[in-house]
Amino acid sequence: MPFRLPAIDDIHAAAGRLGNVAVRTPLLENPEINRMLGGRLLIKAETLQIAGAFKFRGAYNRLLQIAPADRAGGVVAWSSGNHGQGVAAAARMLGMPAVIVMPADAPAIKIENTRGYGAEVVLYDRATESREEIGNRLAAARGAVIVPPYDDPDIIAGQGTAALEIEEDASRRAVTLDALLVPCSGGGLAAGSAIAMAGTSPGTRIVTVEPAGFDDMARSLEAGIRLQNATPAGSICDALMAPVPGELTFAINRKLVAFGIAVTDDEVRAAMRFAFSHLKLVVEPGGAVALAAILSGKYNIKGRAAAIILSGGNVDPAFFISVLQNG
Amino acid sequence: MPFRLPAIDDIHAAAGRLGNVAVRTPLLENPEINRMLGGRLLIKAETLQIAGAFKFRGAYNRLLQIAPADRAGGVVAWSSGNHGQGVAAAARMLGMPAVIVMPADAPAIKIENTRGYGAEVVLYDRATESREEIGNRLAAARGAVIVPPYDDPDIIAGQGTAALEIEEDASRRAVTLDALLVPCSGGGLAAGSAIAMAGTSPGTRIVTVEPAGFDDMARSLEAGIRLQNATPAGSICDALMAPVPGELTFAINRKLVAFGIAVTDDEVRAAMRFAFSHLKLVVEPGGAVALAAILSGKYNIKGRAAAIILSGGNVDPAFFISVLQNG
Repeated sequence: MPFRLPAIDDIHAAAGRLGNVAVRTPLLENPEINRMLGGRLLIKAETLQIAGAFKFRGAYNRLLQIAPADRAGGVVAWSSGNHGQGVAAAARMLGMPAVIVMPADAPAIKIENTRGYGAEVVLYDRATESREEIGNRLAAARGAVIVPPYDDPDIIAGQGTAALEIEEDASRRAVTLDALLVPCSGGGLAAGSAIAMAGTSPGTRIVTVEPAGFDDMARSLEAGIRLQNATPAGSICDALMAPVPGELTFAINRKLVAFGIAVTDDEVRAAMRFAFSHLKLVVEPGGAVALAAILSGKYNIKGRAAAIILSGGNVDPAFFISVLQNG
Repeated sequence: MPFRLPAIDDIHAAAGRLGNVAVRTPLLENPEINRMLGGRLLIKAETLQIAGAFKFRGAYNRLLQIAPADRAGGVVAWSSGNHGQGVAAAARMLGMPAVIVMPADAPAIKIENTRGYGAEVVLYDRATESREEIGNRLAAARGAVIVPPYDDPDIIAGQGTAALEIEEDASRRAVTLDALLVPCSGGGLAAGSAIAMAGTSPGTRIVTVEPAGFDDMARSLEAGIRLQNATPAGSICDALMAPVPGELTFAINRKLVAFGIAVTDDEVRAAMRFAFSHLKLVVEPGGAVALAAILSGKYNIKGRAAAIILSGGNVDPAFFISVLQNG
């Protein structure tokens, strides 16, 4: 079936729906960090969002549009962890049952939290099973609505509300943003952010940041067609391992995203340590990639102002310890 | 010399001075935490303030009122770490030299960051030297202005701006706060918060939270006179070990603070782990005491709404690791 492309009005509508429910996360700025970078860095701390990631925005926006008559069967989602938590948290708020299909090797905190939001978790083996197949079967059996992680206009519109807030807060401070850097997996946050900025601050470039080896969006943008990653595993960024850009998200991103950057695991670890010591924020690997792109100098903001989205913050203590010890 | 007691107008004036400089820290609320507690918990994340603690507010408010002619000699402060960082950061912004007298056993991150803000750090031995003596000598030699950590009307007024923001944000959400719980050492944050709330939401009780064994404010409030702690050392809360309530702060707190609570090191560690996993915030021991009072049930918010101030976030990685491992 053909997709409906979301537009700026959809993002404003999503912002209205989320207004009294989502956390208005702060756009942090720190004079010492600016001094170090020689520019202005505005940091949208979506780690402080409900369920610890921007994913709640899209999930809640999508679930709210399920007709009351269709809510009894609940929702089904598949997710490496953050989308699942967002859907689970939104479903509980709206009194709907939720089943989340998650890889058995997802971080324990993500599995625990998803259950903590009252969702049923179904684990699968990444190497031998198809999560889409499991999800489709569960949804059919229960009469549940499938909530996709990114290839959905309402999900994209919800994710775009974070960029809308960034633009509002930057304008209020009279800052003109050269760029907005966002973590990228399937491309939903990038697509929503790109639509939001195109509609409110068209001079701001959208830049996707991915883990090295999983930069399918960056390579696809350059090639003009959707390209796959070479391998399915091998990054610490468990949240950013979608194998290929979404169909709908790529249709948007190829027009509106400037380009993509890839960062190494070591650059991500350094960014996590920086967030700990300078921002006092707990950030998971996938949540730190945009910060890593800035700190590594791969995106240089000297003499300019840029914003990044920091999200999510769902990381196991043992892994976080290993990153701190690694410094 | 007699003190001038700060009033609500002083706090509004401080808020005006800090408006474009300090971080407007978020008042976080989480539906799952509320569900767990059976009430509403509003969390003021002052860990995200400049220099990682509310202390910047008082320091900047104080420094801004030093006449331009008196700025060349700079400022001197003594501090276990967070006040010093706040003064150092404010001094750099205003182009003033700063000397901070710190205990040699302060967390390394606090000493490093203070130097990172361009201040000169003078270390002293807690057991054998007097920081006041060293500070007074340095100030006299350099013609510098001494910036006390809490017993100062402008410091107190600055600290009170955090509570003003809490009240504004709570009102906007139509929440009536039963109580505001604040970490307490010398009592400056408590005094500023108490004046702010008395002037804007007089039904909100101010409750101080201190480490067990260092609950001089709680005992002093009960006794009606300033009492000392029995020992000078022995808590993980390095920021909350002032030996006795301030003179000015106690004069305010005895009238405006409801009572004090003491929390154990273990309760503080549990609160730090909770902040890591549920709030995605890095909180130092002294910054987590108010959260510890709530989570331990020592202050029960069932059926009510309360706010806490979470501050600061300056903790050494090695210590943070030990807390996470302890869970």
